[in-house]
Amino acid sequence: MAAKPSEPASSSAQPPPASGMRAVDLIRKKRDGNELSAQEIAQLVAGYTAGQVPDYQFSAWLMAVLLKGMTRAELAALTGAMLHSGQVLELSDIPARKVDKHSTGGVGDKTSLIIAPVVAAGGLAVPMISGRGLGHTGGTLDKLESIPGFNVNLSLADFRRVLRECGCGLIGQTAEIAPADKKIYALRDVTGTVESPYLICASIMSKKLAEGIDALVLDVKTGSGAFMKNADDAAYLAQLMVETGREMGKKIVALITDMDQPLGNKVGNALEVEECVEVLRGEGPRDLRDLSLELAAWMFYLGERCPDLPQARRLAAGLISDGSALRKFRQIVQLQGGDPCAVDDPGRLPRARHTTEFTSPADGFVVSMDCERVGTACVVIGGGREKKEDAVDPGVGLIVHKKIGDAVRAGEPLCTIHYNSDARLEEARRLLGQAYAIGSERPTVQRRLVHRVLGQ
Amino acid sequence: MAAKPSEPASSSAQPPPASGMRAVDLIRKKRDGNELSAQEIAQLVAGYTAGQVPDYQFSAWLMAVLLKGMTRAELAALTGAMLHSGQVLELSDIPARKVDKHSTGGVGDKTSLIIAPVVAAGGLAVPMISGRGLGHTGGTLDKLESIPGFNVNLSLADFRRVLRECGCGLIGQTAEIAPADKKIYALRDVTGTVESPYLICASIMSKKLAEGIDALVLDVKTGSGAFMKNADDAAYLAQLMVETGREMGKKIVALITDMDQPLGNKVGNALEVEECVEVLRGEGPRDLRDLSLELAAWMFYLGERCPDLPQARRLAAGLISDGSALRKFRQIVQLQGGDPCAVDDPGRLPRARHTTEFTSPADGFVVSMDCERVGTACVVIGGGREKKEDAVDPGVGLIVHKKIGDAVRAGEPLCTIHYNSDARLEEARRLLGQAYAIGSERPTVQRRLVHRVLGQ
Repeated sequence: MAAKPSEPASSSAQPPPASGMRAVDLIRKKRDGNELSAQEIAQLVAGYTAGQVPDYQFSAWLMAVLLKGMTRAELAALTGAMLHSGQVLELSDIPARKVDKHSTGGVGDKTSLIIAPVVAAGGLAVPMISGRGLGHTGGTLDKLESIPGFNVNLSLADFRRVLRECGCGLIGQTAEIAPADKKIYALRDVTGTVESPYLICASIMSKKLAEGIDALVLDVKTGSGAFMKNADDAAYLAQLMVETGREMGKKIVALITDMDQPLGNKVGNALEVEECVEVLRGEGPRDLRDLSLELAAWMFYLGERCPDLPQARRLAAGLISDGSALRKFRQIVQLQGGDPCAVDDPGRLPRARHTTEFTSPADGFVVSMDCERVGTACVVIGGGREKKEDAVDPGVGLIVHKKIGDAVRAGEPLCTIHYNSDARLEEARRLLGQAYAIGSERPTVQRRLVHRVLGQ
Repeated sequence: MAAKPSEPASSSAQPPPASGMRAVDLIRKKRDGNELSAQEIAQLVAGYTAGQVPDYQFSAWLMAVLLKGMTRAELAALTGAMLHSGQVLELSDIPARKVDKHSTGGVGDKTSLIIAPVVAAGGLAVPMISGRGLGHTGGTLDKLESIPGFNVNLSLADFRRVLRECGCGLIGQTAEIAPADKKIYALRDVTGTVESPYLICASIMSKKLAEGIDALVLDVKTGSGAFMKNADDAAYLAQLMVETGREMGKKIVALITDMDQPLGNKVGNALEVEECVEVLRGEGPRDLRDLSLELAAWMFYLGERCPDLPQARRLAAGLISDGSALRKFRQIVQLQGGDPCAVDDPGRLPRARHTTEFTSPADGFVVSMDCERVGTACVVIGGGREKKEDAVDPGVGLIVHKKIGDAVRAGEPLCTIHYNSDARLEEARRLLGQAYAIGSERPTVQRRLVHRVLGQ
């Protein structure tokens, strides 16, 4: 339906039209639920990236996409347009197959720091471009930066050198990689258009495909600590990413994994590095070790390092038990400017000055956790950012002693809080109090770390 | 559903938050189909008008409104916020009741120039703030400006003076009237967010209510020459406007009227002024006269000038037959700086240098007209604007000789085209050729000028 507004706006400025198309017509087309051609999407993204299509038109289009969805062809076109807005790494001088893993984010979700050295130690190349913490979740770059000296801002030339030398490199998104995504994401963040599976898929896949990889393993989190609380939403996003990756000629699977409670026991940047080293030493919590090995095994399998998954699992476990993954981690840290001694002596990692226990109010069992609140408790004491200009305090965090199904007694510690300032300690305690549900009966639901695998 | 985009945009600028609320939260609330409070809407509109909420956030919100709709309470809040962004005329020094009419726009839709003098001659005050032509439709201001000297850009002080002196005034939207609407409409125009009944309603009603009127008659057009082709869409918009007007304490009705063919026979600015004068003289085409009198009668009735509609219709007809409406029109023209002699001598109005006939290709009957194409034919020869910075040629237009149901013979004129340049004459002819459907049988459908009246 259309109607005449009673007054045309004769005095306001019009945006310059992008050459060869009218952005407003493409907005209307999507708004009305029609399919845009690949060329139309390419023009819109290129126009926006070049500044010809103004923010206010692109944000209206993003909202129309969020509310009306996209066809698979549109999604492939959007991903391609964002990918080709910048450089695509050409790594043919590295003979090994290139594989990566991407997680949609969670609390205590630190598998990248374990997987990258395991898979590189196994002979594949892992050119990993990661992100920072967002909302209640941590980010790989923030964790790595808690290692004194570790530089995540390598130039692409240095990244390539590190990758060639040790089989893996861990950096942040550079200006050359998918600049359209960088600009679009900044706009989504302030216009309520983050939560579209299509826009999320295009954002993730455009960056991952720019890494010049052969294969990708996706860890799509679901549960109270994930961005997608609902397993169906997680599966839908996973399906989109798998299809988009395939369309681009990549080997790809997505594991839908549990995020109803923190992964491992430590939450907070340096604490999580410490826990990764524990796993690389063959110690550490079972859930973190199991998921890391499963993801690494899929990388070995898709990267054609192993003919089947059982062999791939054995390879991954062996690279930990024989110490080669830990040696590889030391090498990465050193090559990226970090202090390799911090790997063996966690005392060299930043550490909060104070600790305090958060105890159970009652006898019983942990029946559930609101895992997002656990992540937010870590953020409010400085372990994450509330605004993106905030600095992260690398030493603070939580050590979780009790997880779902565990028996507790009144007054027994559920977590230890590591903090530097008590300014918001009470807020963190309140969040933890809301996060833990203590009941009189042990929960009977069988917990599974991996819910489903898509794209096998 | 929500997910973590893999990379936060750490380098781009954030908008300054509007004081006391986060615009992004209000965008998300509407996007998710939730109701905003009146205070939230007021803050958002005030923030946008003051430049604290940037265009790109407001356009995302507008798209969410277009796709998710609004509750009646939200619509009332939006209308109120836009209304109170500027001055509301206070006309209590004028003893007469203040009434107005608003049309959603059509082709040959020129009733304002007849109604305003009729109703003012009948003793009510008509403080009419009008618009310009938009798309294929004409606008009251453009028509008035074809009268040599007529000034539609009066200050509010002069408007008030003219209104006091002759009972009516005809101006465009000033900077003081609903500035939020002016800014929002400019944004809607370029972001594909024009076609929302809620946004259309708020735009129209915020300006009309700023006129300080007691009663309003809405002429909501439907058919091939209207913005709302569909009668249900027109009725929905009419219902929204009637409810919003009532909520604001106004007497209000909406007539859903026919726009499947041009109203009257003349299309084009000076030609339409000429036809209005014919009606004011008691001549002119029947449909134009009938609709004008019906709308004027409703204004007399709602303005409590007459106790019932039949008396109101007789009053309106009498003011034409006794010449007082024509005298009132002369007075208005004079008071607003126009040449009053042009009222009596159409030779003083601008006139195109050339005319040419557009003839019927076959014997038969006019079975239908694509009235939007008729309006566009007038636009392409200069009678309207394709871009808002275009100048309007006041003398050009069409005289329609055959309308739906009329018998024609091959080669007989359907319209006369009045033009100054033949640059796009063929395009106009092609449009007219597409507009007229000539069939062998007379159409049997009974045409009604007024489909429905809402809000009685």
